[in-house]
Amino acid sequence: MSEVKADYSLYLVTDRKMLRARDLGQSIELAIQGGVTLVQLREKSVSTREFLELAIRIKEITDHYHIPLIINDRLDIALAIDAAGLHVGQDDFPMLKARELLGPRKIIGVSASTLAEALLAQQQGADYLGVGAVFSTSTKTDASEVSLKQLEVIKQSVTIPVVAIGGINDKNLKQVLATGIDGVSVVSAILAKADILEAAKQLREIIR
Amino acid sequence: MSEVKADYSLYLVTDRKMLRARDLGQSIELAIQGGVTLVQLREKSVSTREFLELAIRIKEITDHYHIPLIINDRLDIALAIDAAGLHVGQDDFPMLKARELLGPRKIIGVSASTLAEALLAQQQGADYLGVGAVFSTSTKTDASEVSLKQLEVIKQSVTIPVVAIGGINDKNLKQVLATGIDGVSVVSAILAKADILEAAKQLREIIR
Repeated sequence: MSEVKADYSLYLVTDRKMLRARDLGQSIELAIQGGVTLVQLREKSVSTREFLELAIRIKEITDHYHIPLIINDRLDIALAIDAAGLHVGQDDFPMLKARELLGPRKIIGVSASTLAEALLAQQQGADYLGVGAVFSTSTKTDASEVSLKQLEVIKQSVTIPVVAIGGINDKNLKQVLATGIDGVSVVSAILAKADILEAAKQLREIIR
Repeated sequence: MSEVKADYSLYLVTDRKMLRARDLGQSIELAIQGGVTLVQLREKSVSTREFLELAIRIKEITDHYHIPLIINDRLDIALAIDAAGLHVGQDDFPMLKARELLGPRKIIGVSASTLAEALLAQQQGADYLGVGAVFSTSTKTDASEVSLKQLEVIKQSVTIPVVAIGGINDKNLKQVLATGIDGVSVVSAILAKADILEAAKQLREIIR
């Protein structure tokens, strides 16, 4: 684990496809104003240069609001912009290597869809777990499904924060929160909405 | 510039598509036995984990033969395996940021297709330039064309090593060498050949 504490309660993961013509920076700013506590920048189909330039721009916004910015998968981008941390999936950087290269002052989150993956990630020093997909999702089609019961078992088996991910929205959020997890990760429930500020506020209100 | 000296004379850039069913590690080993002096691992469509695992395996081979291994684009992979260096294109990491993160003991090469790009890369501390494409190529379809005359002008305008790239093979190699450049970068002229060892030896012989 790192030395960094963070509020994982309303964790936004970006997906520019959801935004149609809207600007990512402006959308993130509205989401933060609505109550998002942490932002993960996720880009899968851009050049390194484009990812870097986008990350620099987004970090100016998250820094302004004192919100941690986590980079998905790309440790080089996280290092280059001095991001708050890195999120790694099971096909990304191995946790131990990521910690070795990032040091103890960066947050490292790991995706887990089984109890075994969750326990291993915790043992290797992950700061938090992204567990899902708890509901089916159009964003990450490769994510295995995790039932709310399994989510609860994982939460009770680890000591690090657990963030639920996958298809979470204003309608099913209470069910997810009932498992006792530390936060929810959302994409479309904020970024696909016409009123991003209001969508984030509504989720924030349910979490309170 | 870094503190590292390297022999750029016969510089192999990998492309697994060229190999059909053959193993990349074995193919690189044959190419080195045939006279390749430097290897760049270039992977554009794999997960981070897959790239990392491949890079670890290839580095065992290049280390065994004391051949520098350069990673294309992915600074995180270069750091993770302690590669000899990184090659960046104009859409990849900016040179200055790459040097800041890699330090003075790593080779950094930059792709350049104009004199302006070449001079800027040298000024920013590049160790060598990859200049091309000097002939049309199926490997990098986005590369701008650089005439042999332009290649010669670039070579005469910089003090760092210039490696010519793009469609170079046993038939046109002498023309390219006549421009005075320090090395040639090849992909298909070695990896697409049935006898990789022999193909590398023939190129090596022409360079001698």
